[in-house]
Amino acid sequence: MNELKAYLQQQSRLFDQYLEQYYSFPENNPQGPVEILGESMAYSLFAGGKRLRPILAMSACRLFGGTLELVLPVAVAIEMIHTYSLIHDDLPAMDDDNFRRGLPTNHKVYGEGMAILAGDALLTDAFGHLAAVDGLSEETRLALVRGLSQAAGSEGMVAGQAIDLHYEGRLDVSREILFDLHRRKTGAMITFAVLAGGMVAGADKEDLARLETYGQSIGLAFQIADDVLDETGTQTELGKDAGSDREKNKLTSVSLLGLDESRSLLEELVNKAVIVLEPYGKRAARLQQIANYIAVRKN
Amino acid sequence: MNELKAYLQQQSRLFDQYLEQYYSFPENNPQGPVEILGESMAYSLFAGGKRLRPILAMSACRLFGGTLELVLPVAVAIEMIHTYSLIHDDLPAMDDDNFRRGLPTNHKVYGEGMAILAGDALLTDAFGHLAAVDGLSEETRLALVRGLSQAAGSEGMVAGQAIDLHYEGRLDVSREILFDLHRRKTGAMITFAVLAGGMVAGADKEDLARLETYGQSIGLAFQIADDVLDETGTQTELGKDAGSDREKNKLTSVSLLGLDESRSLLEELVNKAVIVLEPYGKRAARLQQIANYIAVRKN
Repeated sequence: MNELKAYLQQQSRLFDQYLEQYYSFPENNPQGPVEILGESMAYSLFAGGKRLRPILAMSACRLFGGTLELVLPVAVAIEMIHTYSLIHDDLPAMDDDNFRRGLPTNHKVYGEGMAILAGDALLTDAFGHLAAVDGLSEETRLALVRGLSQAAGSEGMVAGQAIDLHYEGRLDVSREILFDLHRRKTGAMITFAVLAGGMVAGADKEDLARLETYGQSIGLAFQIADDVLDETGTQTELGKDAGSDREKNKLTSVSLLGLDESRSLLEELVNKAVIVLEPYGKRAARLQQIANYIAVRKN
Repeated sequence: MNELKAYLQQQSRLFDQYLEQYYSFPENNPQGPVEILGESMAYSLFAGGKRLRPILAMSACRLFGGTLELVLPVAVAIEMIHTYSLIHDDLPAMDDDNFRRGLPTNHKVYGEGMAILAGDALLTDAFGHLAAVDGLSEETRLALVRGLSQAAGSEGMVAGQAIDLHYEGRLDVSREILFDLHRRKTGAMITFAVLAGGMVAGADKEDLARLETYGQSIGLAFQIADDVLDETGTQTELGKDAGSDREKNKLTSVSLLGLDESRSLLEELVNKAVIVLEPYGKRAARLQQIANYIAVRKN
């Protein structure tokens, strides 16, 4: 586990280094609104996330022999989309959160209007970045744009947020709805990150189907683990108030299934993710370790 | 002028017909949040806009011999981006508008959270649609994705909105800032619509440079005409409160340059747009008429 943690930290650093050099902001007039917009985007983009989605893309790419040079710009686009979703999700009209990763949320620093715009800009720019990645075929770049749009759009992540918003304060929903929520809100983008890594490395159809099963399993596991963590973690571990989901009467796996059943479902999902990658033998060890890690992480 | 109006109405109807068949929403559970999200997106997408950007793309495409089949899906993506920007622009944290085109704004009907999500979903889906247009080369589709992202993103439309937000209530700004605002907030997307029509039809570099000059000129003209209209139009003509920009101390060409100078600048811009298309003779008549129309329209 310590060895995996070292790997995750090193990959996250690699990604951050690339992001800093890749992602430049206008600096000529630090007082101007275009610069403030860029600063607001950077504030959230560099707020020290775990970089789980980039690491998944990088690890999946490596499994199929792809290079970091190819996957890093794709990982940046994915993290931009993830970051925008956090900014908008924290807004007063959505989850109304004051802290994220131990820092004040974007709208607390830059105001609500600028936070909406920073999210919009990250979302919009991400597709331009993706369409311009050097070294990938035109076909692959278009497939990535389509895949990212589907995973993040009106039937994917945004639909998940709509479900979340709709059922806020209601605990009388079915587990079908709960899993639909998780699959869309968190699972779709995690699955896409894994798939994108494979696509960049030229994985074939069968490989991609396996990656999809892996991604869907850990995507759901990730959200359930998040719900368990929100209930059982401490404020220091979480970087936000513990039990905040319960206080807001949010629909979570813990509120619906209880802690025990949530944990056993988590185990089942992790096993599924590990088994589907067995055909790749030792080469899949990293992705399998990550699946296990997702279920037991502390933050 | 009446003949042009008939043309604009007919083109707008053509676009709307295509949009309705192209743009399908999940209907199986009208009470579910994913369906409400789709309804909220449709509410604004079908709220009866002038469809100026689609018509510009269609007319520019026709000038270079392109077909409607090719340009209509591209026009849909452009209108989706335009629609998202209106939904977010109307939010309480932004312009805080209650009416748009004579109808309650999206957040007044669906609530603020759902309106934010509807905008996000339209924005995200637009790029997926664009990447999947049949009949266009992969190279053209990628160029369109990059161009749309640039026109709409952190250096284009969103930057324009950041400038707008930043200077709200301040009338002590230079005309450089005002024109930078207009060029980004309105001009960039209008210019892209014109360029996209040309790209779809296979216009060459010199053609695209002319279209760009045309688009930039009418883009700025459009916004100045809008400012003039906001000051001089009636509530019925506008579909919103007249003088609402002035009441909010918004930075507009009228507040900065006065009515007379705004009008003469408008004329200058329209002339520039008309002249740059003269090499195409009569074939450019429609685009030239539209340039004139933009300056004198009543809504």
